[in-house]
Amino acid sequence: MKKIKKALISVSDKKNLGSLLKVLTKYKIGLISSGGTYKEIKKLKFKCLEVSEYTGSPEILGGRVKTLHPKIHAGILSKRNDKSHAKELKANQYDEIDLVIVNFYPFEKTLEQTSNHLKIIENIDVGGPTMVRAAAKNYNDVAVITSSDQYPALINELEYNNGSTSINFREKMSLEAFSETAYYDAVICNYFNKIKNNNFPKKKIIYGNLIEKLRYGENPHQEAAIYSKAQNLNIKQIHGKQLSYNNYNDIFSALTISKSLPKNSGTAIVKHANPCGVSVDKNNLKSYKLALASDPISAFGGIVSCNFKINKTLALELNKIFLEVVIADGFKTDALKILKKKKNIRIIDASDFMLKDLIKFSSMNESILTQSEDLKAIELEDFKFVSKKKPNKSQLKNLIFAFNVCRYVKSNAIVLASQEATVGIGSGQPSRLDSCQIAIDKMNKFQNLKEDVVAASDAFFPFVDGIEKLVQSGVSAVIQPSGSIRDKEIIKFANQTGTILVFSKTRHFRH
Amino acid sequence: MKKIKKALISVSDKKNLGSLLKVLTKYKIGLISSGGTYKEIKKLKFKCLEVSEYTGSPEILGGRVKTLHPKIHAGILSKRNDKSHAKELKANQYDEIDLVIVNFYPFEKTLEQTSNHLKIIENIDVGGPTMVRAAAKNYNDVAVITSSDQYPALINELEYNNGSTSINFREKMSLEAFSETAYYDAVICNYFNKIKNNNFPKKKIIYGNLIEKLRYGENPHQEAAIYSKAQNLNIKQIHGKQLSYNNYNDIFSALTISKSLPKNSGTAIVKHANPCGVSVDKNNLKSYKLALASDPISAFGGIVSCNFKINKTLALELNKIFLEVVIADGFKTDALKILKKKKNIRIIDASDFMLKDLIKFSSMNESILTQSEDLKAIELEDFKFVSKKKPNKSQLKNLIFAFNVCRYVKSNAIVLASQEATVGIGSGQPSRLDSCQIAIDKMNKFQNLKEDVVAASDAFFPFVDGIEKLVQSGVSAVIQPSGSIRDKEIIKFANQTGTILVFSKTRHFRH
Repeated sequence: MKKIKKALISVSDKKNLGSLLKVLTKYKIGLISSGGTYKEIKKLKFKCLEVSEYTGSPEILGGRVKTLHPKIHAGILSKRNDKSHAKELKANQYDEIDLVIVNFYPFEKTLEQTSNHLKIIENIDVGGPTMVRAAAKNYNDVAVITSSDQYPALINELEYNNGSTSINFREKMSLEAFSETAYYDAVICNYFNKIKNNNFPKKKIIYGNLIEKLRYGENPHQEAAIYSKAQNLNIKQIHGKQLSYNNYNDIFSALTISKSLPKNSGTAIVKHANPCGVSVDKNNLKSYKLALASDPISAFGGIVSCNFKINKTLALELNKIFLEVVIADGFKTDALKILKKKKNIRIIDASDFMLKDLIKFSSMNESILTQSEDLKAIELEDFKFVSKKKPNKSQLKNLIFAFNVCRYVKSNAIVLASQEATVGIGSGQPSRLDSCQIAIDKMNKFQNLKEDVVAASDAFFPFVDGIEKLVQSGVSAVIQPSGSIRDKEIIKFANQTGTILVFSKTRHFRH
Repeated sequence: MKKIKKALISVSDKKNLGSLLKVLTKYKIGLISSGGTYKEIKKLKFKCLEVSEYTGSPEILGGRVKTLHPKIHAGILSKRNDKSHAKELKANQYDEIDLVIVNFYPFEKTLEQTSNHLKIIENIDVGGPTMVRAAAKNYNDVAVITSSDQYPALINELEYNNGSTSINFREKMSLEAFSETAYYDAVICNYFNKIKNNNFPKKKIIYGNLIEKLRYGENPHQEAAIYSKAQNLNIKQIHGKQLSYNNYNDIFSALTISKSLPKNSGTAIVKHANPCGVSVDKNNLKSYKLALASDPISAFGGIVSCNFKINKTLALELNKIFLEVVIADGFKTDALKILKKKKNIRIIDASDFMLKDLIKFSSMNESILTQSEDLKAIELEDFKFVSKKKPNKSQLKNLIFAFNVCRYVKSNAIVLASQEATVGIGSGQPSRLDSCQIAIDKMNKFQNLKEDVVAASDAFFPFVDGIEKLVQSGVSAVIQPSGSIRDKEIIKFANQTGTILVFSKTRHFRH
């Protein structure tokens, strides 16, 4: 237990200061403060000593140098059980400071509000983090409060211990303080890296705000949580059970696909983080029906993501099968009413969600693999029409659609498409031939039409056998990246069979 | 261009200080320093003023308070083009400090050397980060050096600009300084979270050291790099072409499997981050041969990881097919000679690599999903023998093997095994039935024996049809997590067909 005699307060966020000061005063804790905080404390009619008066050093450089003074820092850093420390404090007429309440200049908020570099730089706090780090280091004797969210805990602690704090409390606050300083500098260094286009700095610092601890991870014996670089996930759950780890994983997989499709027309159905149906149609109902038709069995218990507002007709259709999650850019009131009839279905409004071109990362044991996201949509200059037969307009549209969907299917990926809708997806196989077979089996199982079916492959065919299998199953046009030593054989095969073959410059592995 | 007149030096790492001091002295830069650095500078016979003499404030609290003084920080933080700043400096008799050379108490190194909490805490630097952050904030006027690795760049800069530094240089150093402070506090807060078992703090800070910028990511149009929490990856490439992003992804996938198998007997073959063959056998050659036999076609261009030392006989066998990477816990000299005959094959020594039970994470747009790793190996108490027919010892061993391999196969996963070797793996399908079919097709394609084949499913069968398909194909024993509303039907089916059925409490989804 450590009795609090003196507190230093310097807060940028002045929320709830009054109620805290009342308690501090109740326990006769002397207050030191500066600048805006000092003025606020006086305005609230509490006694307070100004830092400059306390240190005998003026506040200078427009506030850049206020608290960076040995009287402050020796007061915070002295070990109370060290006699030489006590002696030195006394010799220099320094007092012990037992409580540091500091929050920083709002660097992150400033970033949201302005792109004025000088203003941003001015919001890098130097004095604040120094006091916080000193107090956090010396948590054995000093309590440190870094957020107004912690005031209730501090008040409780003081009330419960009659003006003292316990070591457990101080340790917990110290931990949160180092979280705060690490986070603060992570945001600063990410800002600098961003303006310098430095995607892969020597030291990479990734930061996230806890959005939610999850019931468990991919499996019940795994602990899990979801974080965001922002303060929220930019999606809004408006109905249904709590989202699970696997839900989130599927939701973001589904959103990555649906948000990449032409606006107000795209539907993606995802199961186990892999798409089982994707389509584009201006008629929203048709868009969903086409996506569902791609693999209605796998869609059972799946996640549907529409990049448009869901209306009543579609809601009635969605309700016909069991879905875990429905995501859309908004819901008509009557549609929502219908969907909500199912108690457990999770309904997500993703109107505010936007795909950002960020560096993605994933951990493998102690390592972190980072890379830019594969958001590159195909462009006409990426194409090379290599077969004698050239695609007509509709075939070309389907080829582009299939190849773009391919980006989001786990490798090796084969996507069969017709009418800008998938009609067979083969994914996650070590052998490209097997992925072809899976896609074809799906098509044969669920589709009647086989006219003008096109195929996309995420990487080149190493042999003729894959494309041969596709053509035998009725595929009329194929798009694939080039690069195999057998490219010529494959072109020859296409010409022999009257197949349209398009080479792309871009490969789309995804693991 | 800013002329350097005064420099403050305080370094924990005193490497290469002499050569730097020579250049600083050449340009008549006044030096201020304290503690051990001061002594070192004097020892090297350079002129230097002690900080306490400079500030007129004694160094106290055993070095805890030395540089936290307004004379130091106003000298660093003053804006040179601001007249009021200049006036205030003059009024207080403070000088400008134009160069700050500081590296921190070695907190991270201390963690490696001791678990003594007090000693660790004492190595939290307060003064150093403050000077560095102040200088980095004021990079418009001040240059900051945070590592002896930057000395050559500083020396070049001073020589090139006749004792001045350019804004580009100062900005670059400022960015690296904030990287350094963010990293430093990230390590501190991770240490506190670790000792407090706080896996999911409110603010999560992840840090990594750049190991290598990679040629590209999963695809050539994606930029990529690999980082490590440690200073290296704990694997050693001893031959072959540079490792690619996909190589690393596959290598860690393969190591996760092979290192989880019983020591000195396990082989995993991976293609596209999915296992295509896994086996356990004390005879190393047989271990590899069994793994290869599981799917010899997919193994082409794959990655082989053995948790034992590779000998000559095995090397000769490995050379028979095209492999991208061979990983092992060491190589006999003659074996290495044989493998190296292939110029391009990447050979990795993973003797030092250990699976650590870390919280893993992956980004999805702005979000970060984190969870504990699924390293849980099956234990006997997880079993429930639910069919009338019970497994014999060999069947039980195979069931355990198959279920453990299942953890590492992308969901939905079906693993068929015999003789503690996979004989068919079905992965990455939205439908469990399809995964069964793929596993069976593999087995029928590549295996002759069909006796005593066991099957493992990563999650429960929702219907009887999956297990039915397996039994029809000759599977005699099945292990699966329980939990379906049709569990009873499935038990009934097992009893009707004389199939051994084992329920596990643990599920093993992996996406």
